[in-house]
Amino acid sequence: MNAYALRSIQLHRERHGAIETRTKIDLNTPDDVALAYTPGIGAVASFIASKPEEADVLTWRGNTVAVVSDGSAVLGLGNIGPDAALPVMEGKCAIFRRFADIDAIPIVLGTQDTDEIVRTVQALEPSFGAIQLEDISAPRCFEIERRLHETMNIPVLHDDQHGTAIVVLAALMNALTIVGKQMTSIKIVINGAGAAGMAIATMLIKAGAQEIICCDRLGALWKEREQLNTSKALLATMTNRHGTKGSLTEVIREADVVIGVSAAGAFSAKMIRSMAPHAIVFALANPVPEIHPDEAKAAGAVIVATGRGDYPNQVNNALCYPGLFRGMLDGNIRRIDDAIKMRAARAIADAVDHPSAERIIPSIFDADLVKKVAASVRAR
Amino acid sequence: MNAYALRSIQLHRERHGAIETRTKIDLNTPDDVALAYTPGIGAVASFIASKPEEADVLTWRGNTVAVVSDGSAVLGLGNIGPDAALPVMEGKCAIFRRFADIDAIPIVLGTQDTDEIVRTVQALEPSFGAIQLEDISAPRCFEIERRLHETMNIPVLHDDQHGTAIVVLAALMNALTIVGKQMTSIKIVINGAGAAGMAIATMLIKAGAQEIICCDRLGALWKEREQLNTSKALLATMTNRHGTKGSLTEVIREADVVIGVSAAGAFSAKMIRSMAPHAIVFALANPVPEIHPDEAKAAGAVIVATGRGDYPNQVNNALCYPGLFRGMLDGNIRRIDDAIKMRAARAIADAVDHPSAERIIPSIFDADLVKKVAASVRAR
Repeated sequence: MNAYALRSIQLHRERHGAIETRTKIDLNTPDDVALAYTPGIGAVASFIASKPEEADVLTWRGNTVAVVSDGSAVLGLGNIGPDAALPVMEGKCAIFRRFADIDAIPIVLGTQDTDEIVRTVQALEPSFGAIQLEDISAPRCFEIERRLHETMNIPVLHDDQHGTAIVVLAALMNALTIVGKQMTSIKIVINGAGAAGMAIATMLIKAGAQEIICCDRLGALWKEREQLNTSKALLATMTNRHGTKGSLTEVIREADVVIGVSAAGAFSAKMIRSMAPHAIVFALANPVPEIHPDEAKAAGAVIVATGRGDYPNQVNNALCYPGLFRGMLDGNIRRIDDAIKMRAARAIADAVDHPSAERIIPSIFDADLVKKVAASVRAR
Repeated sequence: MNAYALRSIQLHRERHGAIETRTKIDLNTPDDVALAYTPGIGAVASFIASKPEEADVLTWRGNTVAVVSDGSAVLGLGNIGPDAALPVMEGKCAIFRRFADIDAIPIVLGTQDTDEIVRTVQALEPSFGAIQLEDISAPRCFEIERRLHETMNIPVLHDDQHGTAIVVLAALMNALTIVGKQMTSIKIVINGAGAAGMAIATMLIKAGAQEIICCDRLGALWKEREQLNTSKALLATMTNRHGTKGSLTEVIREADVVIGVSAAGAFSAKMIRSMAPHAIVFALANPVPEIHPDEAKAAGAVIVATGRGDYPNQVNNALCYPGLFRGMLDGNIRRIDDAIKMRAARAIADAVDHPSAERIIPSIFDADLVKKVAASVRAR
């Protein structure tokens, strides 16, 4: 239980959740009802029937995002199911409203079957302007996102992959500037080979990283290693070009950067001490990081980031998704691509005026962050 | 185009639809974010994981209704598809918010396949407190509603059937009191054998009606008539116990009540003149009724109702569904049944203090209408 646990439960019980609907049209007279409902609404329907794209401006659709989960990998809590996932999705919808003026709707699904999830989300396409997938376990999340991305005509983004990767890249851009290193010449270790690890590795490679080693609980991923599922086998071919083998303790030696998307306590002080000078440590496990920031610094790390708001440098998807979706909805962008993700990362990094070891990424409360990210998305 | 057409399109274009989301929790400080989102929300999720029913009070779910359509039978416009159906569903959601404080979400589906619709709505069960089906064409709507009603643990109601039938019954109760006739001894003709006609016939039989004849475009439905689909065949066995054959013009003779859920102009003055004394005419086709109220009255009808707000006695589903769902959500009622529908009809009829020929049903603006209907639903 964290310090906010009981207060958060109490708050959600009092308010019955975090969001509600409101009308944007008066309904105080028969004339109002005739305009908002029958018979007036029939004309709106007929008009859209002849011009379907008008639904984006004549209804709320053009400003909506469905935040969709099957509850299979919620926060650090695992497969707790759709009922328990609902408050998390509702919280993300509150963030969307507060920071990006987006009408976001939490959708939790009563199935964890890949085909069923794909079919269900496809069937919802006419209802929403975009789809944010959340907290779906790997490797199912890869196939679900790929199939939806390929078949749907609205943006589909798995936040745990790409939102995380975009914010990690943004943070790393500024961190490297501070320590005077280049993306192309550093050694990066990523601990955790699930959805986030896969997306981070992919993003860093696109940003120019040459030497990345990914680890799971059994150590480094390398081609032909046993016990690799399909996505880990792909990750092994994308990374670790020298075919380095061994445990995390072994491969972390002389690394410039270590990124944990794994579990509490996965990094020891000894590991951090074995890294190259000016080590950068991202310990992103939530709610308890892979190593406490103070301990990492004592072991020689010069820049430390976590997923928490009570330490400096919070790597938080909420820095990305409000602006990212604001930009896609406003720009009528139907498919997200790598160039958009790279621009979003650059915009988040650049939103920090004077980066320092204690401030490599902006705060969600920074004025204009969402506007800057949204503008970058639209700046084709 | 009706008088409201251009104004309604303009209003929806200015506002980008009728509803929006709002936050119910402040998000102005890092402490706020920690409570509404991470890490506080993790405790809410964990708590619900151990007690799934708590999701109804710790999230917005217990106050939500999904308004679901495939766009196959929208208003009087037919199969105009999900994009064009969206503003209609959004309008209903605005009504839900304004009159019953319910968070209703418009869901339009990109499929008109019965199995796909059933699977999709089933998959959405953990997201919502209740399902209102809207504007799904007959006979598919019967199977879809039946299968969802049987398999889901939240209320499912096809409004075009039961909402219409409840309000028609309420109106007819007061109309019969005014003309001094009894439900059990009158002859009723229903013109239109789709979803609404089926539901009205079923409801009136449960309310005691003995003699009902249903007509489609080919005239009266009777057992063994040719060109009957499954639902019409069922309707033919439920009604018309004397096996009367013939056109609407023939079977309407000496009827005490005629209910049109058909099309503009389907009733002639000559037909109305052939009815029994003190004739009751419900001409519910939208936006243009089966006969103009003035013409019906000139032909001898003593009570006329339509679906329009600019004539007296508007038979409008919005008199029913806000209170009906308010009552089911508040009473934690998981399945709607005939007793609930009958009580709702009685409550709507009784909401008119002094019924007269010009006022057989309440207005949606009548104080306490929603409360009265909701209370009747809960009054098991």
